Amino acid sequence: MPEESLRYTRTELERFCREIFEKLQLSPEDSRVSAEVLTASDAYGIPSHGMGRLWRYVNALNERQVIHDAEDEIIKETPSTIMIDAHGGMGAPVSVRCMERVIAKAKATGCAFGCVRNSNHFGIAGYYANMALEHDMLGFAMSNTGALGVPTFGRQVMYGSNPLAFAAPANEEKAFLLDMSTTIVSRGKLEVYENAEEPLPEGWAVDKTGKSATDAHAILDDMLHRLGGGLLPLGGISEQGGGHKGYGLAIMVDILSGVLGGGTFGPDIYDTATVFARMCHFFGAIRIDYFRDPEEFRQDMDKMLRQLRTAEPAEGEERVYFAGLKEFEEEARRKANGIPVHLNIVKQVTDIAKELGVEALRAIAGS
Amino acid sequence: MPEESLRYTRTELERFCREIFEKLQLSPEDSRVSAEVLTASDAYGIPSHGMGRLWRYVNALNERQVIHDAEDEIIKETPSTIMIDAHGGMGAPVSVRCMERVIAKAKATGCAFGCVRNSNHFGIAGYYANMALEHDMLGFAMSNTGALGVPTFGRQVMYGSNPLAFAAPANEEKAFLLDMSTTIVSRGKLEVYENAEEPLPEGWAVDKTGKSATDAHAILDDMLHRLGGGLLPLGGISEQGGGHKGYGLAIMVDILSGVLGGGTFGPDIYDTATVFARMCHFFGAIRIDYFRDPEEFRQDMDKMLRQLRTAEPAEGEERVYFAGLKEFEEEARRKANGIPVHLNIVKQVTDIAKELGVEALRAIAGS
Repeated sequence: MPEESLRYTRTELERFCREIFEKLQLSPEDSRVSAEVLTASDAYGIPSHGMGRLWRYVNALNERQVIHDAEDEIIKETPSTIMIDAHGGMGAPVSVRCMERVIAKAKATGCAFGCVRNSNHFGIAGYYANMALEHDMLGFAMSNTGALGVPTFGRQVMYGSNPLAFAAPANEEKAFLLDMSTTIVSRGKLEVYENAEEPLPEGWAVDKTGKSATDAHAILDDMLHRLGGGLLPLGGISEQGGGHKGYGLAIMVDILSGVLGGGTFGPDIYDTATVFARMCHFFGAIRIDYFRDPEEFRQDMDKMLRQLRTAEPAEGEERVYFAGLKEFEEEARRKANGIPVHLNIVKQVTDIAKELGVEALRAIAGS
Repeated sequence: MPEESLRYTRTELERFCREIFEKLQLSPEDSRVSAEVLTASDAYGIPSHGMGRLWRYVNALNERQVIHDAEDEIIKETPSTIMIDAHGGMGAPVSVRCMERVIAKAKATGCAFGCVRNSNHFGIAGYYANMALEHDMLGFAMSNTGALGVPTFGRQVMYGSNPLAFAAPANEEKAFLLDMSTTIVSRGKLEVYENAEEPLPEGWAVDKTGKSATDAHAILDDMLHRLGGGLLPLGGISEQGGGHKGYGLAIMVDILSGVLGGGTFGPDIYDTATVFARMCHFFGAIRIDYFRDPEEFRQDMDKMLRQLRTAEPAEGEERVYFAGLKEFEEEARRKANGIPVHLNIVKQVTDIAKELGVEALRAIAGS
């Protein structure tokens, strides 16, 4: 069978996930937001954070590793800052609420920041940074995650893939939207190689002695049992390649999320295939008009992004991108043609839906 | 002759640079600050931004590429933000003034940011981020710089080494101080290999066709004539190694400095061996106590940094560091033993001093 995936509208994916979350007793509003953030990932062409992760949320809600009726507690609040304890609830809804508060505060004060602690996976960091754009603000979002990264010269995992997102608006060009893990790759990529039984590219990971390694299964297994080994930071294994910089960025994200947020950080955060660890997030917004006319800012952004997009490609390459451009283009394609979901994942979520009594996913005709 | 350097006290290096700047008609206060930032780099063991750069400042001031009597102009100011036009003056003094204002504003509002445009090289970014620590704040400093970085899949320089610094205080441990260029290395490293007539490590740079290259002289020459080729972003040449992330970080720094600052950005900033380009900087400070008790924050920082510092090293490695630790340790060593300056640089700055009528550097006895 040549077809490996079926295609769906974004609305249908959202409907499906929302109903599943509702069956798991998440409030209608939290179900809606959780579904929207999850499927945004598929819409942008980032399958690692989309439908393929639904089963983990379902498991976690079923086993109360994620608390469906947790209530946000505002631990501290000032006109420019907010600190929220999520008490183990779903990551996405509390993150949207926090970013909304941060944006409202920045509207009044020019710039504002918020931390969330005792939260869970919040999906794609870029979703929250992106929320600032329609308000003519710069947006920031970060999170610590389960420990899987090995420091330069080390062999034990001491930090997570710790994503960092930054968004800035433009006019005619798409916005600039950087959304990156600070490790070279995230755990999902290792799992892809493990499933395919293929060796990892050199330079992604080290084994339990701290030496460069390519056996995905052995590395994941040793990580699971905390024997040593893990992913390398952006920049790789050596200072010569700048690995200490990626490692430094990962710790910066952990300080802003975990330490500033007063939550769990570093090697104390660990999640396994089934258990979600408590994580902390960090959000920020800065008003552009506190510095200059936003229209002029966006015109300069257009100039910058156009220069990058039209820069001469290297021999053998087709074009140059800027951060977010691939995803924006993919989003447009998927809006026109539907969002493909791999048949394995369709089967997985269909089983979940059956068990919960949720209407099955309706694919786009002919897909 | 085995001795390749002489040793000096920090005070003596500061005295020497200050007097040279004063002879070049910089105000006493700007001379003092410029000298302090320049020699801080030598004190931390980062020679690329220290005494070896003095001649460039001297040239630039002599030829009015840097304007000795430029006056800061505050373009826009709010309780939480400030935007300064440096009108081509020295980078360090206006940067210190901006960061001081940002800290004072953050004291009142919780968080504050500032941009400086039409400035010049500001030395080590970490100097300014570090200023926040004694106020129990988190500090941020960034700058765009002369274009020398090639985007992923590209062949032309489109952005600078664009440093990013972040500082967070601890108690018993040294502070966390990340200070990194967002390219794999900075131009200075290429010049070191050019001078030594040695091939570059693979993965640092590309030639004018966009292919990986190791001939430092050819690359620098082609960059100078803007024929193509340049340094690679953190993460290297491919998306597989995460090069698009380093490239994205470099553009983030350029947006926060150059676009938000309303100044020059991207490939329009270029400096040569003798000409300083106009640059833009970005500074920020966030009060820790707006989120949690600073004493508890610092205790958690101690825990985090101690865990990293004592993490088990990889086979064949001696120890694990955290960002800033090597520099803090080097600073202590140099405080005890003096700061070494290479004889070539001693000769260079002695010639400058003679010409300007400044008393020669007095080395530590026996060095």
